[in-house]
Amino acid sequence: MNVQTPAKADETLMANAIRALAMDMVQAANSGHPGAPMGLADVTAVLFNRFVTLDPADHRWPDRDRFVLSAGHASALHYAVNHLLGYDDMGAEQLRHFRQLGYRTAGHPEYGHAKGIETTTGPLGQGIATAVGMALAERMMNARFGDELVDHWTWVIAGDGCLMEGISHEAIDLAGHLALGRMIVFWDDNGITIDGTTDLSTSMDQVKRFEAARWHVQAVDGHDPEAIAKAIEAARADDRPSLIACKTVIGKGAPTMGGSHKVHGAPLGAAEIAATREALAWTWAPFEVPTEVRNAWRAVAKRGAQAHAAWAARKAASPLSDAFDAAVAPVDVQTLDAAICAYKAQLSADKPKVATRKASEMALEVVNGTLPNSVGGSADLTGSNLTKTRAMRPVTAHDYSGDYIHYGIREHGMAAAMNGIALHGGFFTYGGTFLAFADYCRPAIRLSALMGVPVAYVMTHDSIGLGEDGPTHQPVETIASLRAMPNLTVIRPADAVETAEAWQIAASSTATPTLLCLSRQNLPTLRTMHTDTNKTARGAYVLRETDGARDVTLIATGSEVEIALTAADALEAQGIRAAVVSAPSLELFAAQPADYQAKVRGTAPRVGCEAAIRQGWDLFLDRDDAFVGMTGFGASAPADALYKHFNITADAIVAEAKSMIEKGKRA
Amino acid sequence: MNVQTPAKADETLMANAIRALAMDMVQAANSGHPGAPMGLADVTAVLFNRFVTLDPADHRWPDRDRFVLSAGHASALHYAVNHLLGYDDMGAEQLRHFRQLGYRTAGHPEYGHAKGIETTTGPLGQGIATAVGMALAERMMNARFGDELVDHWTWVIAGDGCLMEGISHEAIDLAGHLALGRMIVFWDDNGITIDGTTDLSTSMDQVKRFEAARWHVQAVDGHDPEAIAKAIEAARADDRPSLIACKTVIGKGAPTMGGSHKVHGAPLGAAEIAATREALAWTWAPFEVPTEVRNAWRAVAKRGAQAHAAWAARKAASPLSDAFDAAVAPVDVQTLDAAICAYKAQLSADKPKVATRKASEMALEVVNGTLPNSVGGSADLTGSNLTKTRAMRPVTAHDYSGDYIHYGIREHGMAAAMNGIALHGGFFTYGGTFLAFADYCRPAIRLSALMGVPVAYVMTHDSIGLGEDGPTHQPVETIASLRAMPNLTVIRPADAVETAEAWQIAASSTATPTLLCLSRQNLPTLRTMHTDTNKTARGAYVLRETDGARDVTLIATGSEVEIALTAADALEAQGIRAAVVSAPSLELFAAQPADYQAKVRGTAPRVGCEAAIRQGWDLFLDRDDAFVGMTGFGASAPADALYKHFNITADAIVAEAKSMIEKGKRA
Repeated sequence: MNVQTPAKADETLMANAIRALAMDMVQAANSGHPGAPMGLADVTAVLFNRFVTLDPADHRWPDRDRFVLSAGHASALHYAVNHLLGYDDMGAEQLRHFRQLGYRTAGHPEYGHAKGIETTTGPLGQGIATAVGMALAERMMNARFGDELVDHWTWVIAGDGCLMEGISHEAIDLAGHLALGRMIVFWDDNGITIDGTTDLSTSMDQVKRFEAARWHVQAVDGHDPEAIAKAIEAARADDRPSLIACKTVIGKGAPTMGGSHKVHGAPLGAAEIAATREALAWTWAPFEVPTEVRNAWRAVAKRGAQAHAAWAARKAASPLSDAFDAAVAPVDVQTLDAAICAYKAQLSADKPKVATRKASEMALEVVNGTLPNSVGGSADLTGSNLTKTRAMRPVTAHDYSGDYIHYGIREHGMAAAMNGIALHGGFFTYGGTFLAFADYCRPAIRLSALMGVPVAYVMTHDSIGLGEDGPTHQPVETIASLRAMPNLTVIRPADAVETAEAWQIAASSTATPTLLCLSRQNLPTLRTMHTDTNKTARGAYVLRETDGARDVTLIATGSEVEIALTAADALEAQGIRAAVVSAPSLELFAAQPADYQAKVRGTAPRVGCEAAIRQGWDLFLDRDDAFVGMTGFGASAPADALYKHFNITADAIVAEAKSMIEKGKRA
Repeated sequence: MNVQTPAKADETLMANAIRALAMDMVQAANSGHPGAPMGLADVTAVLFNRFVTLDPADHRWPDRDRFVLSAGHASALHYAVNHLLGYDDMGAEQLRHFRQLGYRTAGHPEYGHAKGIETTTGPLGQGIATAVGMALAERMMNARFGDELVDHWTWVIAGDGCLMEGISHEAIDLAGHLALGRMIVFWDDNGITIDGTTDLSTSMDQVKRFEAARWHVQAVDGHDPEAIAKAIEAARADDRPSLIACKTVIGKGAPTMGGSHKVHGAPLGAAEIAATREALAWTWAPFEVPTEVRNAWRAVAKRGAQAHAAWAARKAASPLSDAFDAAVAPVDVQTLDAAICAYKAQLSADKPKVATRKASEMALEVVNGTLPNSVGGSADLTGSNLTKTRAMRPVTAHDYSGDYIHYGIREHGMAAAMNGIALHGGFFTYGGTFLAFADYCRPAIRLSALMGVPVAYVMTHDSIGLGEDGPTHQPVETIASLRAMPNLTVIRPADAVETAEAWQIAASSTATPTLLCLSRQNLPTLRTMHTDTNKTARGAYVLRETDGARDVTLIATGSEVEIALTAADALEAQGIRAAVVSAPSLELFAAQPADYQAKVRGTAPRVGCEAAIRQGWDLFLDRDDAFVGMTGFGASAPADALYKHFNITADAIVAEAKSMIEKGKRA
């Protein structure tokens, strides 16, 4: 294994380099968190010096270890380490400009901002939960490609906050259940949170808690390098995921402020920094690292480069080399497109009347049959979300070769794990729950969007159309709240064809997550004339144009497009020419050229219809245009009764259209 | 204590009445969940028959026990029990119309829909987390009014889903830490979830997990009445909160389907129902309950009525009677208004330049000094949210007389506990976190709104103005996503005066939660002319009118109102008359009469400004109006640099205003 016997003195200096750089960075920025980096410096030095395998010269090498700083506010630690390891984008200028505009050293580690940052952290608990996905992906890739090509570790540093957040419960239960023995978490047990000592707010026995979740647990002095190393060895030897509780002193090294919550989130100040330098016998200037220390850190990088070279040689000789490349490559769009087009043509001919959740399952049969590496799952709503296609087999602790994950009743843990699987690489991943419970995983969806991770959320039962389960389960504001999120494509398809197109978009996406809103209730096929073109990709399009100038334009999404078509028929019978626009995605429509948007919207009065609130519909509607939808929470009753009760009907659309046309005549 | 020795035979019949009614209800609706009610029938019968104290004739009696069905999908159980206890709004007609429009028997128990439902459940984990707030409120009221007036229990039935959700971790850690020994949770350990057996997705040792959280834990056969009763006795005798793990068979009584996930969420069908009736020797027709069984249940109600009468006698004799009434009464609005008006007058004179989070702390000094029963808290951001006023003392396991709760890093648990405290009665409650982390507690905020619970959320660091912490901590879409929620008043005040008015609104609210968006950065006092009128209550108002017809109207919220005023000055210097509208609350403005709205909006071109996305601003802006704000995620840098970088400046407003005026001239 990749372990060396270190010089002890080196490791102390390696740790003190982190301490010095962290306090210098925070002081220069006059902002940030020095306490955790200083307290964690010894653990980090031992971890990297003796165990971590990565190659700063190729930060995307697939078999590298994954290092996740779940306690993201300790970002100065991450930047110090990356600087010391020699990442070429993390020079001293970056450290000197910690938390400044245009530099890579953001307040919290941001995925994509600098090499070696495996995921964005800061919102507490996300790192450890995302790491579960990484560790799972490692085992799933290992099951497919063997130890020769996939054999790495997922290291996580978590703080008290990470372990207090609810998402940590979902994450550790899932990790323990799936026996993710390659995941090793260091808990920075410093007894301090922002408000003061941890005993202000928690009495949790974390050791016992993690044992209850089937983890291997050890507790060590986080400032004793040999104890730390021994614990890591034991953790690696155990089949279960491991927690190493590291008793640390926050701000360790700062002679008067160490151990206090005052070092958590503010600079130490010049005097304390000077005293710390003296106490540590760190005689070098701010941001200066002596050659011997730098060399010690560079030795870690060198070890990683050697491991990388050995891996490359093994891969070159492996019969699985091409398959491996295909798994980690972007989706083969041509093959996918061909399969979807053929499927769409069949749909337009067959005209099935199915719920879009069922249409999603049908589309997934095509997608999963085409992609070599699709991984699905659901937060315990498999039979409702219809996320498990026929050939899919569960992933279990005993067999990681499957491709379906029973995430349990853990929406938040699921979404974070999906991010981790996607960030790890090797899989296209999706997962399902009810749309109303998007709220339960919203912080992780936000990270999908912020990081640009192209996962797909399958959110079924997307309106009052779910019926009897009532207002707790009925999205009303949920769609608007998701459309508000930057870099998230929300699609609410109207029929099986649009659902197929939605999956084509989701599976081809490279830097944007997709969220599908799918009906519980059956809907007819509306796109009965096949086109190879993906109309959904334009966000909105004219589904039925009028013969002659429009008197009114009806714009609807999802299950309400059928209602709009019925209304258009009724209007036509009264001599009123109503165009019908299907608008599956507001984000995609907003990205279209102005002339296309204008053509779709038309100049006639408009009636929008969606079984949800109006917020966001100004993309289509002017102030005087009408909207048929919801203004408050739903109710418990059969779906048909609810649509009537809340007046989301063809009659209501007809009445609004006629009223607007009348007003227009009077004006 | 209120325990009787029951006739065993009675209890079996009492349980079978629940089973029969539940399966009949679900069958009639052709929708619902019979499995959990049937599996839990024995536990429920013992619990109510021997332990629960409530008075169906006065469902709001303050010293009643609180019964929370956290496994809300088992609603048929709740309705059956309430029917059997004789609540006057839960007649057989309600049961026959389970899950139908206009009936009280909604798919999941809805607070306010029927008597005896203490909180809305269905979104899993919310019940147990809300119950923590109830149990805490009980102890806090007890500390104030003694055993004579406050001495009741909080009973919770939770399923596997509740315990898998992350929120349960936050809830049980908080309950264990605060030693809420009056809270007793029954875990319906039936080994079944929707996807199948629980071993598909979890390996958690729940007993050990709850012990780690400092709970008293027992495991019993959930179909053995004496074992259940004995466990409850032991639970009551212990000072810690208690979990009683009840091994049950889902759908117990159904001869062929019992024990399978098939009984979880679908009717049993006529044949299985007939077989169940036979197996249980339950010979009565659907919805029929024999007199002897009905009498057994009514005896529970009678026992409760007697306890209520005894309590009333104690209260009448108590010197604390008036204080108790004041605590559970609505806020004394007159006193509050007078205090706020005096404070506002002082502010307008003093003109402090403070962050609105600081202004919130100042306003809270007034509010907390006025209300007899204000309870604050923060999710470990006390010094950042500024939620702890000077006289506040922490609530601890050893002293519940305090009024400040260190919720820990548990936004979700905090929000649910706040709901529970408010539902319990006796307190006005608020809690704080960063606005970006509203996402972490959104499901509980949604329940505040759905139930109409008037809690207050203090959400600070409300924009890119928080600076260096970066995009993970910077709300951009958050405000829009919260404005989308029905029955939630979102207020983003511009200065100390508006902040005081926001607190006046929040503290006076009776059926709507309030969410305050507060700045990290300092803002000048803009309302320098005192008015007793609460201008914030109109949602938006003209802060500075033009001398003569408006050339342009600038509309801004929060920290951007200052920028709009600077822009108006600059425009005035160029001979352009710009009115400035301060718009602290879109919801409150939307509720104003059309003529008021029209007056505020004016007819001149408009420029909106908010350091957030435009979604929702169509309330103020027409399609051609301009908006200065955000279009994507933020970045890490000092606040001033970010405002410049994202072009949210007076210069940008001026440029937009001039461009629109130019366009208007050309048109």
